[in-house]
Amino acid sequence: MTISPHRADLARLIDPACIALVGASDRPHSIGGRTLTNLIDHSTIRGELYLVNPTKTELRGRRCWPSIAALPQTPDVAIIAVPAAGVLAVAEECAARGVPFLVILTSGFGEAGAEGERAQQRLKEIADAAGMRIYGPNCPGLCNINARLGMTFSPSFPHDLVPGPIGLATQGGGLGRNVMQAMERGVGIGLWASTGNEVDLQVADFIHYMATAPDIKVIVTLLEGIKDGPRLLAALQCAADNGKPVIALKVGKSEYGQRAAQSHTASLTGSAEVNSAVFRQYGVIEVDDIDELVDTAWLFARAMPPAQEAIGIYCSSGGTAALTADAVGTSGLKLAQFAPHTRELLLSRLPDYAAIDNPVDTTAAILSDADLIEQTLGAVTTDPNLGCVLAPIALEYGATTVSLAHTIRAAQQQSPTPIIPIWMSDRLGEGYKLLVEGGFAPPRSVGKALKAVQRWTEWGRWQRAGGLGEARATTPARSPSPAGGTVRNLSELEAKQLLAQSGIALLPAAVAATREEARRIADGMGYPVVAKIASPDVVHKSDIGGVKVGIADGAQVELAWDDIMASVRHHKPQAAIDGLLIEKMAPRGGFELMVGVTRDPVFGHVMTFGLGGIYVELLRDVTRRLLPLRPADARAMVREMRCYPLLQGARGKPPADVAALERLLLAVSDFVMAHSTSLEEMDLNPVWVGSEGEGALPLDAVIVMLEDA
Amino acid sequence: MTISPHRADLARLIDPACIALVGASDRPHSIGGRTLTNLIDHSTIRGELYLVNPTKTELRGRRCWPSIAALPQTPDVAIIAVPAAGVLAVAEECAARGVPFLVILTSGFGEAGAEGERAQQRLKEIADAAGMRIYGPNCPGLCNINARLGMTFSPSFPHDLVPGPIGLATQGGGLGRNVMQAMERGVGIGLWASTGNEVDLQVADFIHYMATAPDIKVIVTLLEGIKDGPRLLAALQCAADNGKPVIALKVGKSEYGQRAAQSHTASLTGSAEVNSAVFRQYGVIEVDDIDELVDTAWLFARAMPPAQEAIGIYCSSGGTAALTADAVGTSGLKLAQFAPHTRELLLSRLPDYAAIDNPVDTTAAILSDADLIEQTLGAVTTDPNLGCVLAPIALEYGATTVSLAHTIRAAQQQSPTPIIPIWMSDRLGEGYKLLVEGGFAPPRSVGKALKAVQRWTEWGRWQRAGGLGEARATTPARSPSPAGGTVRNLSELEAKQLLAQSGIALLPAAVAATREEARRIADGMGYPVVAKIASPDVVHKSDIGGVKVGIADGAQVELAWDDIMASVRHHKPQAAIDGLLIEKMAPRGGFELMVGVTRDPVFGHVMTFGLGGIYVELLRDVTRRLLPLRPADARAMVREMRCYPLLQGARGKPPADVAALERLLLAVSDFVMAHSTSLEEMDLNPVWVGSEGEGALPLDAVIVMLEDA
Repeated sequence: MTISPHRADLARLIDPACIALVGASDRPHSIGGRTLTNLIDHSTIRGELYLVNPTKTELRGRRCWPSIAALPQTPDVAIIAVPAAGVLAVAEECAARGVPFLVILTSGFGEAGAEGERAQQRLKEIADAAGMRIYGPNCPGLCNINARLGMTFSPSFPHDLVPGPIGLATQGGGLGRNVMQAMERGVGIGLWASTGNEVDLQVADFIHYMATAPDIKVIVTLLEGIKDGPRLLAALQCAADNGKPVIALKVGKSEYGQRAAQSHTASLTGSAEVNSAVFRQYGVIEVDDIDELVDTAWLFARAMPPAQEAIGIYCSSGGTAALTADAVGTSGLKLAQFAPHTRELLLSRLPDYAAIDNPVDTTAAILSDADLIEQTLGAVTTDPNLGCVLAPIALEYGATTVSLAHTIRAAQQQSPTPIIPIWMSDRLGEGYKLLVEGGFAPPRSVGKALKAVQRWTEWGRWQRAGGLGEARATTPARSPSPAGGTVRNLSELEAKQLLAQSGIALLPAAVAATREEARRIADGMGYPVVAKIASPDVVHKSDIGGVKVGIADGAQVELAWDDIMASVRHHKPQAAIDGLLIEKMAPRGGFELMVGVTRDPVFGHVMTFGLGGIYVELLRDVTRRLLPLRPADARAMVREMRCYPLLQGARGKPPADVAALERLLLAVSDFVMAHSTSLEEMDLNPVWVGSEGEGALPLDAVIVMLEDA
Repeated sequence: MTISPHRADLARLIDPACIALVGASDRPHSIGGRTLTNLIDHSTIRGELYLVNPTKTELRGRRCWPSIAALPQTPDVAIIAVPAAGVLAVAEECAARGVPFLVILTSGFGEAGAEGERAQQRLKEIADAAGMRIYGPNCPGLCNINARLGMTFSPSFPHDLVPGPIGLATQGGGLGRNVMQAMERGVGIGLWASTGNEVDLQVADFIHYMATAPDIKVIVTLLEGIKDGPRLLAALQCAADNGKPVIALKVGKSEYGQRAAQSHTASLTGSAEVNSAVFRQYGVIEVDDIDELVDTAWLFARAMPPAQEAIGIYCSSGGTAALTADAVGTSGLKLAQFAPHTRELLLSRLPDYAAIDNPVDTTAAILSDADLIEQTLGAVTTDPNLGCVLAPIALEYGATTVSLAHTIRAAQQQSPTPIIPIWMSDRLGEGYKLLVEGGFAPPRSVGKALKAVQRWTEWGRWQRAGGLGEARATTPARSPSPAGGTVRNLSELEAKQLLAQSGIALLPAAVAATREEARRIADGMGYPVVAKIASPDVVHKSDIGGVKVGIADGAQVELAWDDIMASVRHHKPQAAIDGLLIEKMAPRGGFELMVGVTRDPVFGHVMTFGLGGIYVELLRDVTRRLLPLRPADARAMVREMRCYPLLQGARGKPPADVAALERLLLAVSDFVMAHSTSLEEMDLNPVWVGSEGEGALPLDAVIVMLEDA
């Protein structure tokens, strides 16, 4: 298993002193030719650049070397741009020479059928044996904009001219390049890694690198699939430890997307719900579209979210003011109440018919008065009662808008509070250009701006609440289930006994092999009791008449025995029957919840907790966490449920035993950790929770364990 | 009350032969000067244009007239651009001359405090007395792009050069102008009415006009508030009758938005939920942002949604293909299965490593082969198994993208199936311009494109299902409650008797004045019964111990009497007590639902129907309709509930009596219509519904009636 490299290791790949280009070419449209142009004409090489091509002695006035072996020094990075058939030989040469990093641009490997897959596997073996790291193959290369270094064949690299604190890690090149083109809108992306087939280095490794890279403040990633869940989690932990936000767009929220992404990247595909839950747990800001990725990254690059969350709105159209205020409200965000001195200044300076309370509507009449705009916008932007100012610009109005753009730039100089101009028009005029040149990346609609502010605000709240906290002491077994081995459904009694051994409270229960024993057990427990068929072959007991509840006395126990046996034998004549499980009935009242655990193929064991009973599937009032839980996780899970107010004692009901519920979640987490290699799935549904002091008890338990083949 | 004008009436305002401009000016930046420029330099006047200004004899080489009275003929429209102080006098002059329409650009009326409000009122009186119609005041004017006529002072009018089948009706000018600037993206807007203070003509009137205007196919509206609900509904009905989609952005979804919009337009503000429900009922396509308004309008202008709803995706980047497929899936839309001949063509022409099943990923390698792209895109676009083709373009790639744009234009020539190019890059290059010139208005992100397609598809489904149907036979009283009059809570028994008189089935119930009478009544009904305090002063009976359920015999009735009386006297010593309401208890099992009716200040009586009981507030599983209901409405309401599958008999429960539920909804609607002038509010919660044949019964009833003061 490959270990995730430290940042220091990758630094030599990302900011190398000495580079070799193997397959350098003078054909301008070839991969080798384009890469050569990017390196020579558009890059700054810190040390040496060696061109390798056995068929030439010189290329564009530079010496050409016949092989890696022949170079006067060992390069930090060898960029490989030879045809697929020649890649393995070059890789072997590099391994022999001790080159630490290969950037393999060539395609025709894992993405190109079985033969390519074999070649890719061989490439990995060569690299592993030599301790050499590979980036690619089948990738557009690596763009270090902040160091002005383009180890890439992309003809767009010469236009990638806006350095900045945003780091971008993607798999495919097309979507990544799309994000890079957001530089047109003033977004400064300092580093772009596009990892292609990920034979060795993965998106996760570059997130890990960026988490401590001094020139990167904000990490952005596009994921089509995840090759190695634990490696990604380690990277995310490192980003959280360093206070850097990670903004992610993950394809695969629907079956169509999963299918298309899987055929494109051959990554693992877990469930979209689990993926989003893990992202939330790790503080990853998940977005739904590329424009949202860009808007959000820009806002974080501009400023980290302050504790003061309220928003100011400043504009010159009443309708736009109302639309923006509305979007603030529907986003669940707050409009600021201006400080008295702000209000006074606005009142004294703006005309009578202007709206001076937040949102400010100056009216279009004063747009030509740049001084007045600067003063009033300045007053709003320096108001201590807000954390950002939205400045929606509905119109491209020529000279008036140019003047407004100048004013926004000037006002921003006077305050650290970010002004977010929203460019709503499809006409991108001079004013727009001025804003972009001034370091603004205006979102293109009110809704998109609010989405960015909302995500920014929520991440700030998450971080102030402690963020991800210390790295987890225990590393759960997160590898997908081994192919070998069989899975077995434990019987309900087995499952409950196993849970009881782990200290999970349960109602008294025992299996009776005869009618008489059933009655004796029930008499011992006290009534009412529940009787359920005990059979390894019956999972959905109530569907075949295998359950009786509210049994009030011994006579009813015997009746229940007869009824259940008859019904089960009728529906499942072949089922092996151990007898009846007799269980004390839960007290009346209380709520029905559920706790489930599954093993996600990417991330490992995940707990699902939420509302149980008949509404469970319709309402999907559930929350999820990667295991193990910490006490804070259990607390949060209970409070995240939409139905939490009911647990607090709504509608005349007494408050539920939330403390016992949290203890149960933690106990289940411990149970899973103790059985992490074998536990495939468990389902406690319903979990009964009574009022304070009455406890929380799983009433049914299904556990599926992996057993050796 | 002003009657909504017929289209024929407004045609003379919108496409006048003869126009007078009162307040024509040679000061280029004045309202009168700018309007003059738009009329003379940028408009086509069908008949005569008269300039009126008593201080001039000539303006820009044209004769000036001293007054409206002095004109040689009566103009169809007088555009008024004089200062506020002079408007009333001009209006009187116009009224005397018999001018049918005024366009009043001047501001300083209703929006400018009490004095302005008085002047505006006077304006209305002058107009009403003369049968003259007013557009404005405080508006930017009226732009008839299709007739190339700008009765507006907007300096942007000279750029409004893209005629088309989209009609736009707005209140404020700022947001409306923003939509107009979408012409930059190829969106053809043929007519823009921006109605300002709406002293007379409203947005609704222009929607009504557009509903039958031959040059308008798609109606778009921005609403900050609604002045007259029934007038809007009549317009929407007319649009539906003519098969024209109405796309609306309504500000006021949150309290912030409502407050800001109200201060801006002085319109009525109803509840956002009611507004959205009425829109849905009338087939109005509600959008959340201006870019969505534009994307959706363009798509409808391009093509009406076909019965074949499946979607094709054609692009040249694997990541983009996956992202787009994902968005199709999360939107609940379907990817098409290509016809065999399409698949064969793609298979034979595209390279091995391309993805040929939907989504098509040609890979970037073949982008330079225009013929190949045209053939394969052409095959997809003419495939009979799909209704539209998404062509996401992730990158601006110079000449390659130009070639792609040409190909898309060519492919579109060969098929009526719309191709929707999605321009995802922030770099708007030559390829983008080519698409726009070719009549495409590319959405700017995958998510936004899908939102447009989703709304387009849903409207098509709504229309194929019969749309709005015939105009309603009865017009409900929808005027807001009169200021006079007092409201009274009927007692539960009064309310139930009133419902019973209207033929609504209820459980037997009677009020007992003494303990003994209570027992007698209960004995007569048969047990179990429910006892509830009967008092005009107690609404929330259970909160003060005023309810006992499950009373099993006569002794328990007497006990209930004592307990309830003691508890109510303890909590509410001053309450007048009529006795105990004894009611037969509903059978066990069944579901708890709720039916409520409120009077919306804009639209009138609205029914809310949905899940009752403890989950009602948390889950908000409700649906709403404007009354009266038709049988199809009742059917749809029951089926729109998220919990409908439970009513169908999920989880081993028998199916609920859905037919009785529908009858109850219709009966409540009839009841409301019969009491429409006095009914303020009613709340049947819970409504019990049993299994098939058992019926649907309101268990509690609160009715609030308006009584004369």
